[in-house]
Amino acid sequence: MVQRLEDSGEFGLIKKIRKLMEREGIRANGVTLGIGDDCASFLPDPGYETLITCDCMVEGRHYLPGRITPFDLGRRAMVMNISDIAAMGGIPLYALVSLGLKKNTAVEYIEDMYRGFLKELNPLNAAVIGGNITGSEHSEFINITLIGKVESERALCRSGAKAGDSILVTGYPGQAAAGLKILLENPDDNDGLKNTLVAAYNRPSHRAKEGRAVALSGLATSMIDISDGLLGDLSHICEDSNMGAKIFRNRLPISQPMCNLINPQGWDIFETIIGDSDDYELIITCTPENTAKIKGAIAEVSNVPVTEIGTITGRAGIRLITSDGVSHPVRTTGWDHFKGKD
Amino acid sequence: MVQRLEDSGEFGLIKKIRKLMEREGIRANGVTLGIGDDCASFLPDPGYETLITCDCMVEGRHYLPGRITPFDLGRRAMVMNISDIAAMGGIPLYALVSLGLKKNTAVEYIEDMYRGFLKELNPLNAAVIGGNITGSEHSEFINITLIGKVESERALCRSGAKAGDSILVTGYPGQAAAGLKILLENPDDNDGLKNTLVAAYNRPSHRAKEGRAVALSGLATSMIDISDGLLGDLSHICEDSNMGAKIFRNRLPISQPMCNLINPQGWDIFETIIGDSDDYELIITCTPENTAKIKGAIAEVSNVPVTEIGTITGRAGIRLITSDGVSHPVRTTGWDHFKGKD
Repeated sequence: MVQRLEDSGEFGLIKKIRKLMEREGIRANGVTLGIGDDCASFLPDPGYETLITCDCMVEGRHYLPGRITPFDLGRRAMVMNISDIAAMGGIPLYALVSLGLKKNTAVEYIEDMYRGFLKELNPLNAAVIGGNITGSEHSEFINITLIGKVESERALCRSGAKAGDSILVTGYPGQAAAGLKILLENPDDNDGLKNTLVAAYNRPSHRAKEGRAVALSGLATSMIDISDGLLGDLSHICEDSNMGAKIFRNRLPISQPMCNLINPQGWDIFETIIGDSDDYELIITCTPENTAKIKGAIAEVSNVPVTEIGTITGRAGIRLITSDGVSHPVRTTGWDHFKGKD
Repeated sequence: MVQRLEDSGEFGLIKKIRKLMEREGIRANGVTLGIGDDCASFLPDPGYETLITCDCMVEGRHYLPGRITPFDLGRRAMVMNISDIAAMGGIPLYALVSLGLKKNTAVEYIEDMYRGFLKELNPLNAAVIGGNITGSEHSEFINITLIGKVESERALCRSGAKAGDSILVTGYPGQAAAGLKILLENPDDNDGLKNTLVAAYNRPSHRAKEGRAVALSGLATSMIDISDGLLGDLSHICEDSNMGAKIFRNRLPISQPMCNLINPQGWDIFETIIGDSDDYELIITCTPENTAKIKGAIAEVSNVPVTEIGTITGRAGIRLITSDGVSHPVRTTGWDHFKGKD
């Protein structure tokens, strides 16, 4: 018989989760009090700043119920947050997980979600140290707060880009957006969950070790992760740095699965690459002479491709340069939760 | 014309909130990066542990929409979290606010909620340093993560109570439960929002300075805040300390507004005092010889009454001693989000 939350109750569930953490999670360094008291506590490392971020996923809005396994859902929710620590060049340490759950949810579903969290945290020696569980009748939500650390004054912000800086991007932005389109266009095809692009949406990777390598190089002027799409997040760098940017259409990285899509689906592949997409890749800016060094620093820890796609400019706004050399102004806002696409 | 989220958009709202914080909030010490980047960051104090807690309020479940002002809602959500830091004896420092909002919500409503956060944070020199905003079609939710600090190894846990310890409680537990009953029994009476007991539910106080005084005294063996009711939270102390407790019915503190209620409403006042209630008062345990000193330490910073209601016992379970000296075993589980009252 499937055990549901209304059977186990809140406190029964918390006990189960605590045991699962002890059995399958790791004990992170520095934790002085874990799950179970009014607060969790930890002893911060001298010489480091504490980083903190939170991100929330709401059923139906950030994921499609039934089209992602609870294990992948847990992974994805944690990756979103790890990616924010990665974008500062930091080291992820401790997570607080706050869940809003329907009472007919199977306990096993929640346990699988926690296994997804651990799948991402364990390799980083990071752990869930606290959280909250509450009922939410209409839609499930997963709010994660992630704590990290970075050497004092070494955090990489969005605001340091300078005119003339090169713009680098890791991996293949837009793959997650393509995966989401495939999911939406094929509502009954659960075999499609194995599709490479659907996997890019459901099971994205974070770039924690790549972001860390960039921070340790000391050579980047700014960094951000892509959660609002390539253009959306590049525009955040531009706004916070009071700069603009030009990107070259023919330099945009296109993965093989994306190439394969162009004709059959009839999508505008370039729109997909630069538009709203939750890829959790990194955008990095640096002076042109440091481009090769940053690529080298990343190559030492990762096989992910790093592509130089353009240049920061003193003139506000983002321009797309097509292969004929013509410069086109582009809309720069990313995904907006209340307006949708701006 | 009322401006709504679908007009201002997510990024427009974030800018408004950021400006409101700069205008009406304080700049907390130690913050190296506030709202606006991938993470917030701060420089922890040497000699202190970092405390972290999160709590979530879901519309319809933790508050009654239309029966609480957004300002009071913001205050209450922040008080819940401050109370958790208070229960460890810590100092609240920084908050991350994660909101799930309907798109037709008025921007002014959100601004008033943030003013409620600031009303609680400003006097503590604490600040909102980050957060997240997302859409949630069906029910609004407010998740707050609060960071605090406490001198190394001085955090007051639930697990330190010993047999023979006195049990102290601040204020008047059960007032919030009474207020909620009044709200539910009078669905159309918004004048009743001014009622003292309704105010105890809608506008509770935290006990941050009292909790801090207890921690600094070094004399308490355990501490917890009351968010699951007097019995519910005392049972958390008992379970985590592997102890039991006896409480004396005629020592339970009853406020004047509660006394006034007994006859007209026909409630069981004692059930209301010991049952599920979100009072954010503190339960403190200490050896009998330290009772007066702890009361004295609290009296130096606060006028809140502190009442000795019973004793920790070596025998598991909680017993209520009535005025005839008879000992009655009582059910000890507090509010459960999936089962309701156990």
